[in-house]
Amino acid sequence: MLIIERHGLDEIFNPTSIAVVGASPDPDKAGHQFFKGLIDLKFSGDIYPINLEGNDVLGFKGYRNLREVPGPVDYVIVAIPAHEVPKTIEDCATKGVKVTHIFSSGFSETGKDDRMKLETRIVDTAKKGNFHIIGPNCMGIYHPKIGLSNFGIFTSKENGPVCFISQSGGNNGDFARMGLVRGLRFSKLVSYGNGCDLDSTDFMEYFTWDPETKVICAYIEGIKDGRRFVKTLKEATAVKPVIILKGGLTEAGSRAVSSHTGSLAGSEGIWKALFRQTKALQVESLGEMIDVALAFSHMICPKGRRAGIVGIGGGASVAAADSCERAGLVVPRFMEDTMTQLEKITPIAGTGVKNPVDSPVGSRVSIPDYEKTLKLVASDPQIDFLIVHVTIDWYMRTPEDRKNLRDSTEALLRNKENFKKPVAAVLRSSHSLDTWKVFLEEQKQYLGGGIPVYLTLEDAADAISKLIQYHEFRGKVN
Amino acid sequence: MLIIERHGLDEIFNPTSIAVVGASPDPDKAGHQFFKGLIDLKFSGDIYPINLEGNDVLGFKGYRNLREVPGPVDYVIVAIPAHEVPKTIEDCATKGVKVTHIFSSGFSETGKDDRMKLETRIVDTAKKGNFHIIGPNCMGIYHPKIGLSNFGIFTSKENGPVCFISQSGGNNGDFARMGLVRGLRFSKLVSYGNGCDLDSTDFMEYFTWDPETKVICAYIEGIKDGRRFVKTLKEATAVKPVIILKGGLTEAGSRAVSSHTGSLAGSEGIWKALFRQTKALQVESLGEMIDVALAFSHMICPKGRRAGIVGIGGGASVAAADSCERAGLVVPRFMEDTMTQLEKITPIAGTGVKNPVDSPVGSRVSIPDYEKTLKLVASDPQIDFLIVHVTIDWYMRTPEDRKNLRDSTEALLRNKENFKKPVAAVLRSSHSLDTWKVFLEEQKQYLGGGIPVYLTLEDAADAISKLIQYHEFRGKVN
Repeated sequence: MLIIERHGLDEIFNPTSIAVVGASPDPDKAGHQFFKGLIDLKFSGDIYPINLEGNDVLGFKGYRNLREVPGPVDYVIVAIPAHEVPKTIEDCATKGVKVTHIFSSGFSETGKDDRMKLETRIVDTAKKGNFHIIGPNCMGIYHPKIGLSNFGIFTSKENGPVCFISQSGGNNGDFARMGLVRGLRFSKLVSYGNGCDLDSTDFMEYFTWDPETKVICAYIEGIKDGRRFVKTLKEATAVKPVIILKGGLTEAGSRAVSSHTGSLAGSEGIWKALFRQTKALQVESLGEMIDVALAFSHMICPKGRRAGIVGIGGGASVAAADSCERAGLVVPRFMEDTMTQLEKITPIAGTGVKNPVDSPVGSRVSIPDYEKTLKLVASDPQIDFLIVHVTIDWYMRTPEDRKNLRDSTEALLRNKENFKKPVAAVLRSSHSLDTWKVFLEEQKQYLGGGIPVYLTLEDAADAISKLIQYHEFRGKVN
Repeated sequence: MLIIERHGLDEIFNPTSIAVVGASPDPDKAGHQFFKGLIDLKFSGDIYPINLEGNDVLGFKGYRNLREVPGPVDYVIVAIPAHEVPKTIEDCATKGVKVTHIFSSGFSETGKDDRMKLETRIVDTAKKGNFHIIGPNCMGIYHPKIGLSNFGIFTSKENGPVCFISQSGGNNGDFARMGLVRGLRFSKLVSYGNGCDLDSTDFMEYFTWDPETKVICAYIEGIKDGRRFVKTLKEATAVKPVIILKGGLTEAGSRAVSSHTGSLAGSEGIWKALFRQTKALQVESLGEMIDVALAFSHMICPKGRRAGIVGIGGGASVAAADSCERAGLVVPRFMEDTMTQLEKITPIAGTGVKNPVDSPVGSRVSIPDYEKTLKLVASDPQIDFLIVHVTIDWYMRTPEDRKNLRDSTEALLRNKENFKKPVAAVLRSSHSLDTWKVFLEEQKQYLGGGIPVYLTLEDAADAISKLIQYHEFRGKVN
């Protein structure tokens, strides 16, 4: 209700002017880094540095307080010691801002009475002043499209379909940095910390209807109004996939949650029921969240759970089959005709053609025959989607090896559209610096062709299974 | 029984002369690569290239067949087409070799009658000739200490406490390459493929008593004599830890196993019982095997399951606690006195001191205070071992950040011996090329100080839990 009475979240995520309280010329100060982040990301509106001395920062005229700023201010970032925050919040009210993001920590998360009162006081001021608070104890919003930076961590305006709602600032950064390397692109990120005003439920509601967002990811430690959260989550999953990492489901984790954001973590049983009821997808780590979000970002919806697997290595083929079945996918035998055709182009010794196909491309199978293999598997009516896997280290010895790897990737990419079935790739490697460099190069090719890339067969199988799980719920599978 | 009658495995793993049948001047031939591998690894004994034309290879005098070789030959590597193999095996008998490693594939693994007969024929010849066969369809032995190379994949004579018995040649290479990057060092690797003569049970028996080996790892698709395998495995786990990845436990995986090495995979229920009965440790991927082997290679035995966790990040601390408890470890509250001391040196805001300790070293906690934190946690009687975790990306912005990361590592290393408790580290990173480079540098420091390094908190918790599980069985814990 408050959201409607006060400024809507769409305005909050799209400010046209930002002041950074605590922005000083000292590059070690958090306020400086927030301010520099806006410059680096070329924020499209006006920006104002605020510090006690009214010093200029990075060529921008400084002000001693918000009231001195000549133009209107939509969005305020506060990076000053906790006990100085209430004064600034009062200035926010006077100035008529739309939202204040409090980076500063030292509030209710400490569990100390006086600090909790401090937090209550600023919430009251904000309510009376008709503006919202994000935080305290958080990194705030990253909205790359308009250049709204989050602590200056990210310097790219490139954007994409994934949002992240995070109670933890560290997880917010880690998820985004790891995700960027793996090919995720973000609509918006928000770290909301103690969530004294706006919290996970508000953001979930906003992203449900945000046209820039196709996939909602969330890291949650605790929620305030369980009933409203469940209702909001149900509405969200009816519109788009929601992937949640719930922190603190164990006893020690719950204790850590209370030290971190002062939240009540809730029991594992309650959360299991919540996931079942709302159809949100539960993941157990940020890494798994990235894997699942990659599937939703890059794969079309498979028509069912039946995997066709093409790769190199007998042991790896066994692992591929085991991983898929453990994740609830199906690895059916190909049609007889498919196997007959595959036998003609697959070496007899030590390889399989029943599914998985062990196709030693480059060494014992030519690129044209590999291409035929892919087409045969993709067109088999027993198969709903493809998993392709290789080990990069096997293609590192000679320039010809590297060419074979590149050519096999290209053979897949030039046929992929005709398959009309989604494809995921697994690029194993030893993670030596050399192989990791090749991984990143190859990954770029795959992502450019709309194919997500996984580090292990288990990761791929888990992500695809969750992709299908969501679509089964939405009634799009079978 | 055969092992005792014929040459013992110790002789087989330590040949003084090797002939490579199929070694030709053509660098694309497998035989060439095996031969070059022996040169690169500076094999300490005599080596002879054998090819139909008797061509010299890489400066070594060539012979047309084994019989022509002037001196004795202990070990023969065979890399020629399957149908030519029986003739060479007869030559092996004539020459009086100790073992023949058949790289060539195209035998029983094809499931074809004539190919199975071919395999039976060579086994008979070997039995009559009083020598052993490794393979066919495999990579053979890597014994770095004496320079016995495996396909020339590895160029280092550096060795260590871990052996690997692998039915799959690909898994053999992948495990070793990945393991090397992560700091595993190997006593011996053996890939035995179809295992027509020597198989997993023989190697398990050998490594049980091999003084170079402290940790046995094995990838197994199928076994021949279940009763003997169980007996051998029980004897092995009574002496040293055995970590097994069993391929083909699902229906599709079992089918892939039959295509790969022609083995019968066996049901999941039977294998579960086998793991329970023998106390071998089951892992589900090569990556997990590396993680567990790292713990056994680098950590002393903790006295119990109680983890003390020191790291940076509130969300990461929650994940650390959740990961430990999910893996069956315990994260107890510290003693009151420890917490009181920690409170003095830990920032009040957004951090915890109860366990995990959220210690933002570098940004808000000085190196000396971080060092104090480590000492306080390590000396808490509630704690049996330490997990230390950081995110590398948080230390990449400035040279001072990098120095803080290095200094915090050194603070741990210079105190570790005094802790008298084992330590594991988790170095999270985005895996950008820059952060991965730093990961490898830092990892080197940690490994040098006897601390294994994990990529994620879950991996660390799982590995430590399995380390303790083995020692609990051996009666060394509590």
